Amino acid sequence: MARRFGVSERPGCDPMNQPFDTWQARFERLRSNKIFETCVIAIIIISALLVGAKTYEEASRFEQVMRVFDMAVTGFFLVEILIRMAAEKRLRDFFKKGWNIFDFIIVTASLIPLEDSEMVLLARLLRIFRVLRLVSMIPELRMLVSALFKSIPRMGYVALLMFIIFYIYGAIGSFLFHDVDENLWGNISLAMLTLFQVATFESWATAVLYPTMEHYGYSWIYFLSFIFLNAFIFLNMMIGIVLDVMQKENTLMELESGEGEAAELHGLRDDVRELRDQLTRMEQLLTQRDGDAAVDKPARD
Amino acid sequence: MARRFGVSERPGCDPMNQPFDTWQARFERLRSNKIFETCVIAIIIISALLVGAKTYEEASRFEQVMRVFDMAVTGFFLVEILIRMAAEKRLRDFFKKGWNIFDFIIVTASLIPLEDSEMVLLARLLRIFRVLRLVSMIPELRMLVSALFKSIPRMGYVALLMFIIFYIYGAIGSFLFHDVDENLWGNISLAMLTLFQVATFESWATAVLYPTMEHYGYSWIYFLSFIFLNAFIFLNMMIGIVLDVMQKENTLMELESGEGEAAELHGLRDDVRELRDQLTRMEQLLTQRDGDAAVDKPARD
Amino acid sequence: MARRFGVSERPGCDPMNQPFDTWQARFERLRSNKIFETCVIAIIIISALLVGAKTYEEASRFEQVMRVFDMAVTGFFLVEILIRMAAEKRLRDFFKKGWNIFDFIIVTASLIPLEDSEMVLLARLLRIFRVLRLVSMIPELRMLVSALFKSIPRMGYVALLMFIIFYIYGAIGSFLFHDVDENLWGNISLAMLTLFQVATFESWATAVLYPTMEHYGYSWIYFLSFIFLNAFIFLNMMIGIVLDVMQKENTLMELESGEGEAAELHGLRDDVRELRDQLTRMEQLLTQRDGDAAVDKPARD
Amino acid sequence: MARRFGVSERPGCDPMNQPFDTWQARFERLRSNKIFETCVIAIIIISALLVGAKTYEEASRFEQVMRVFDMAVTGFFLVEILIRMAAEKRLRDFFKKGWNIFDFIIVTASLIPLEDSEMVLLARLLRIFRVLRLVSMIPELRMLVSALFKSIPRMGYVALLMFIIFYIYGAIGSFLFHDVDENLWGNISLAMLTLFQVATFESWATAVLYPTMEHYGYSWIYFLSFIFLNAFIFLNMMIGIVLDVMQKENTLMELESGEGEAAELHGLRDDVRELRDQLTRMEQLLTQRDGDAAVDKPARD
Repeated sequence: MARRFGVSERPGCDPMNQPFDTWQARFERLRSNKIFETCVIAIIIISALLVGAKTYEEASRFEQVMRVFDMAVTGFFLVEILIRMAAEKRLRDFFKKGWNIFDFIIVTASLIPLEDSEMVLLARLLRIFRVLRLVSMIPELRMLVSALFKSIPRMGYVALLMFIIFYIYGAIGSFLFHDVDENLWGNISLAMLTLFQVATFESWATAVLYPTMEHYGYSWIYFLSFIFLNAFIFLNMMIGIVLDVMQKENTLMELESGEGEAAELHGLRDDVRELRDQLTRMEQLLTQRDGDAAVDKPARD
Repeated sequence: MARRFGVSERPGCDPMNQPFDTWQARFERLRSNKIFETCVIAIIIISALLVGAKTYEEASRFEQVMRVFDMAVTGFFLVEILIRMAAEKRLRDFFKKGWNIFDFIIVTASLIPLEDSEMVLLARLLRIFRVLRLVSMIPELRMLVSALFKSIPRMGYVALLMFIIFYIYGAIGSFLFHDVDENLWGNISLAMLTLFQVATFESWATAVLYPTMEHYGYSWIYFLSFIFLNAFIFLNMMIGIVLDVMQKENTLMELESGEGEAAELHGLRDDVRELRDQLTRMEQLLTQRDGDAAVDKPARD
Repeated sequence: MARRFGVSERPGCDPMNQPFDTWQARFERLRSNKIFETCVIAIIIISALLVGAKTYEEASRFEQVMRVFDMAVTGFFLVEILIRMAAEKRLRDFFKKGWNIFDFIIVTASLIPLEDSEMVLLARLLRIFRVLRLVSMIPELRMLVSALFKSIPRMGYVALLMFIIFYIYGAIGSFLFHDVDENLWGNISLAMLTLFQVATFESWATAVLYPTMEHYGYSWIYFLSFIFLNAFIFLNMMIGIVLDVMQKENTLMELESGEGEAAELHGLRDDVRELRDQLTRMEQLLTQRDGDAAVDKPARD
Repeated sequence: MARRFGVSERPGCDPMNQPFDTWQARFERLRSNKIFETCVIAIIIISALLVGAKTYEEASRFEQVMRVFDMAVTGFFLVEILIRMAAEKRLRDFFKKGWNIFDFIIVTASLIPLEDSEMVLLARLLRIFRVLRLVSMIPELRMLVSALFKSIPRMGYVALLMFIIFYIYGAIGSFLFHDVDENLWGNISLAMLTLFQVATFESWATAVLYPTMEHYGYSWIYFLSFIFLNAFIFLNMMIGIVLDVMQKENTLMELESGEGEAAELHGLRDDVRELRDQLTRMEQLLTQRDGDAAVDKPARD
């Protein structure tokens, strides 16, 4: 997946004249080096473990050590991204890949000193997001995430339809059950959150349905219709997506396998047409000779 | 999706003689206008936000403003539906589309003054259902909902079978566990609701199974058999639907891709038959000449 | 689906000699009568509603009426099954269909007088199972249930594997967490029931995992491994079944669609072979005449 | 599935010279004997029931009997595995199959005397794992487990991606909600466990979301984004796997069914080429005779 530059490529034969090119090539080789890549991944994992370790109470004892570690990791990431930028022929190329921009933001943002007590939270979050660099480093994960992004539009209109249903049921629920439980049905936002809880089947009967039914005996119609509608749309969406993807897959495959057969059939038809031409020539010969013979015969008599 | 009338269509060249036709054409053009459509969608969204805003306590302060807004939206919807009705050649055509009837009911119903304290609820519900007009306005959502409606009959008999199972288990549960918890098993309706709760796995063990097992040690047979039966039917239904839709899909595709090939094969066979006819003609010529030759030869001797 | 006997079939032209046959034919016609079928279904639904109505407290007031109704329904069912038995040429045929045996058991069992206070429960259960006769009466439901029965063996070994996993985890859980909660882990049966609860995600964390973790800090390994193992096997089973059914479906379709094409291809090949035979005959004629001509020529000189 | 050695195979005709070979053949026959296999399976099931029985309080009364039973089962398993080892031509072959190694470990480990009070637990666990020998004895289960193992790598990267998401959300949750509930968000491990509970929808709203929202009003963004992300990846993974397996399946089938058709088409083309050769020969004959005739004619004049 990752574009790799083999060792056989030797840019800059004259190191004196093209000092920059040589360095760029060296960085390119370094960036593509398997050991370097493994090293970067290892540092990302260590940085992730560091983030995890900080969440433990006991970590406060080693705060000084951790701070040093953290600075070392930040430094390494800075060097690594500079190497990758230097490895590109033009700096502009570096920012053409979405993953590079992502890496750049993560690394530069963690350089900004955020020692304010209020900003510490943000700095910590940035350090957590460094773990996502694993995705940008491992090609298989990068592919997986790309595939996920591609499947978003397909789900768009179903999500919109779902939202409309949630909104309508939320508004109805908020109007009807306002007095039952202010925390669950107080306003449309709370009602929609409650409905999401119902959609995940979490305590929907014991904590939501039964208390409501004590006041409104027929409220089960509201909940059951909502659950069935949701399940129904979700099921249809699932089936729809599976079929959609499958159809594309099949069409591709049919084309591939069909092409061979179609070519064979086409060739066969050409062969048969050649036969016809040959036969037509022969028939002309025969009828011509017949005519000759007919001319011949009377002349002979 | 939406039938659109291009600007190139110019009905009524003589505006003096066909004043009505001209107006109809103008309305037709207005209805199909992209800006007008976007405007309608925007108003629907504003009306939806209004409905949502009313569920907040703070909204009561702006009640007067909201009332005006609401009347404006109602007025706009009235004008919009009148334009769409005027855009049709015959009024009857307007009511041929299900979505138009839906829009008409929503709009006219909200015109009825429902200022009674008892009717306010209904008026509010009507205003909520206006959000559904989004579905009737966006073609992609309209298609999605049509697809959903089409998939209903396919699920009908499975739903009936499920209902029979719920009914039987509900009756058994109501007879057996009547004394355990009047709220859960008091009558067949409550029992079926409890079973639906069990089917969604909501607190089925902690709130339903264990209290029942305290009285009837073997009641786990009842619950486990119910869960397995449901899961089993549901799984089979899912697989059945996926396969059913896929089969139709495949048959269609096979027909399409097969048609090309079948046509090619058919053409090939016709070619070969032509060859045979040609050959038969030639053979007749040859045998005829052979006969002639045979007749010829003795005559020559 | 249901074997139906048209009215055009007129067995027994001589009613005096074949009195039995005539009656059998009449019963046959009655059994296949659409109105009679609808009537039976209606009675089954009424009997089902009766069963449901009895679960309400208020029903006790109409106990006398209900008893009469119930006897009427029982009587009707008896008559109906006797008609269906009389409609068969040989009584043996009646018991060849599984659904008939099912109906027979349901009907005859409800004839046995079970007025003992202890047997009342059984009598009630029998009346509930009458609702299942709906399945045996509606062909579409009968087909659905047959399809379900057919899919049982396919799931057999997966179910066995699942059971083994439940058994092993149950035994381990019972040994390890015996002291934590006697009700959840007291013996292997209780432990397996608890594990089933965990498998349905019902209060598995709040009611099972956290109390256990208070005593055994590493018990999350036990629960998480169990959940992952279950989900993993279930997912694989689902995919396996879908693929299995699809493969069979596809093979069938390929055969069908392939048959048409294969037949076409085969026919084409036969046509081409006929052409060859024709050509061979013509070639023989030509070479023969050539020979004749060769013989002819010298003779002419 | 299991390699079986028929009775017709008679190794060692001279029993005096090849006493070892004869014994090996006898063991081979014994191992493959249907009755012996059934016997082994029966003993495994008895041993499993023994393990289950021990979890009941009442079992302590029969402790002496059970101990004897247990020793008998252990002895039988030892003899059985020795027979299977003796049945192999070379002992090395025995350890080439993974299932044999599994059986060997289970059997030998249960021979080690673990009468220490501390080791009793381990001894008991070993006895439980004996139930797994059922899987290694029944070929269908062995196949199922092999299929499961094969599907692991396919799920590897998705699992890694999921873990990264859990880790990041765990770290964020631990930082943000540390003060809300020490038991749920105390450190990254607890936070990830809580997130797993949320992912299974177990009390995620009532026990996790609402208490958190009391302190941080916008924490629903955290939970909803986590749930949607998880559902989204899971859905995509499911679809991906189904399509992946299906594609392989289809490619295989296309190849098989395509081969027949391709062969037919190829044969047809060969037939047509033969026709052309035949026609070419005939045309040469005709033109040659035409030439002869042309030569003939003037000569005749």
